[in-house]
Amino acid sequence: MSTNRYATTTPLPNDAPVPDLEILRTLNSRGTVRNFKPDPIPDTWLNALIAAAQRAPTSSNIQAYSIVVVKNLATKTELAKLAGDQKHIIDCPVFFALCADLTRTEMATEMHGQEFEGRTLEKGLVSSIDAALMGMTLSLVADSMGLGNVMIGGMRNKPVEVARLLKLPPRVYVVFGLCVGFAKSAPMAKPRQSMDAVVHQEFYSDAARERAIADYNRVLEQYYVERGMKGPTAAWTQPIAEKFGGPRRKNLRQHLKELGFDLE
Amino acid sequence: MSTNRYATTTPLPNDAPVPDLEILRTLNSRGTVRNFKPDPIPDTWLNALIAAAQRAPTSSNIQAYSIVVVKNLATKTELAKLAGDQKHIIDCPVFFALCADLTRTEMATEMHGQEFEGRTLEKGLVSSIDAALMGMTLSLVADSMGLGNVMIGGMRNKPVEVARLLKLPPRVYVVFGLCVGFAKSAPMAKPRQSMDAVVHQEFYSDAARERAIADYNRVLEQYYVERGMKGPTAAWTQPIAEKFGGPRRKNLRQHLKELGFDLE
Repeated sequence: MSTNRYATTTPLPNDAPVPDLEILRTLNSRGTVRNFKPDPIPDTWLNALIAAAQRAPTSSNIQAYSIVVVKNLATKTELAKLAGDQKHIIDCPVFFALCADLTRTEMATEMHGQEFEGRTLEKGLVSSIDAALMGMTLSLVADSMGLGNVMIGGMRNKPVEVARLLKLPPRVYVVFGLCVGFAKSAPMAKPRQSMDAVVHQEFYSDAARERAIADYNRVLEQYYVERGMKGPTAAWTQPIAEKFGGPRRKNLRQHLKELGFDLE
Repeated sequence: MSTNRYATTTPLPNDAPVPDLEILRTLNSRGTVRNFKPDPIPDTWLNALIAAAQRAPTSSNIQAYSIVVVKNLATKTELAKLAGDQKHIIDCPVFFALCADLTRTEMATEMHGQEFEGRTLEKGLVSSIDAALMGMTLSLVADSMGLGNVMIGGMRNKPVEVARLLKLPPRVYVVFGLCVGFAKSAPMAKPRQSMDAVVHQEFYSDAARERAIADYNRVLEQYYVERGMKGPTAAWTQPIAEKFGGPRRKNLRQHLKELGFDLE
């Protein structure tokens, strides 16, 4: 299938069986891993991982991202603190800082005598998305290799301090981090919201929303019960209310401006 | 490997061979596809594709995204126009609009008597990244199934008109689109910038940047020559200079504000 996959003979019937693919099995069993063995990741694997992630799509081939690979204990310890005491950043053998990076596009623009226009929201967004596409691919390849991982949005808690620590130049910021390593135990694959809530045919419709949210609270509660875990009272909505009720990371805009992302 | 992949016996030697994985082969041969056969994608495949993409990581399980699945010719024709006359949006059998969506988090927050704080840059960014992680997974699963695809950032050209067309409520916008279908021919897997330019060990360093950019202009030029294509004079830097020299999508901030993303 995979070597000659673009030569598929079509049309296929509407109920054609789904190809039996490794990636589907990987995704179905993946989940967040925060418990890592201290064992290092072989360099051969790290190189293959990064090379594969660079194959991710990038908007108009701008490749407006960079990766800082952190293995040093002192740096990981400081990053863990800046992210709000996330111990797994210290424990994982490799921490990837996925950066939006406009420096190479800036250099290219100036090489041709143009004035670099990096102040717009679009530039901040397109580079952040580029980093996210690359980071998602890194995560999925890691999972496929048998490496547990967890994304760290907490890099946006103190973006200026993170940038200073990793010696980032202006026009670079860490969008999120990725802890990678061999897991101590299999991850928990938490159920997601039903397709009714998330997927819309032809036009957006909010008809299913309220019901889907109530159902999801029950599904998630059941998931915690089955694992002998004590979840929140309303398993999905309560923690969301806590998160979205307050002005979390309210100074992000000002901090990113300090780092050369004006987002105007 | 994949069924019991978290049980890997470690430590591994530093030069351990890289596992032979389907996903590595898929990534190495993937690239943008803009020529689609008219053949439809089986519903069984579409469901598997979306279910798998929902397994993507999401920040604190907020799932702040939605997908609008568009097959209707009239809508695709209008979307193609709004994206700046991108004919492949009309030709592909299925167009996915990947949306940042804060409506379910808003409902959850209000259910618990909290005031929804959706005005910050962080909320716009975290939901856009959530949509990107989901969209990247959708793209990679599609590639694995033998379905060609191309991401459409041009959805951000006229975001208000796109939202109106797809009947999006406030607090939802299309981050990017994804055209999916059976390809007429294999995609071109364009080379990427060297790891020297993109990957940094422990700390960021710009020592390799200038050289890496010059090298990449040559690599990309060679790539065009080998395929008998006429690329730009400076294969990477010149089109970048054109893109970043002007104020592209300069009103995006104001447009997203109209759609309920204040980004303050």
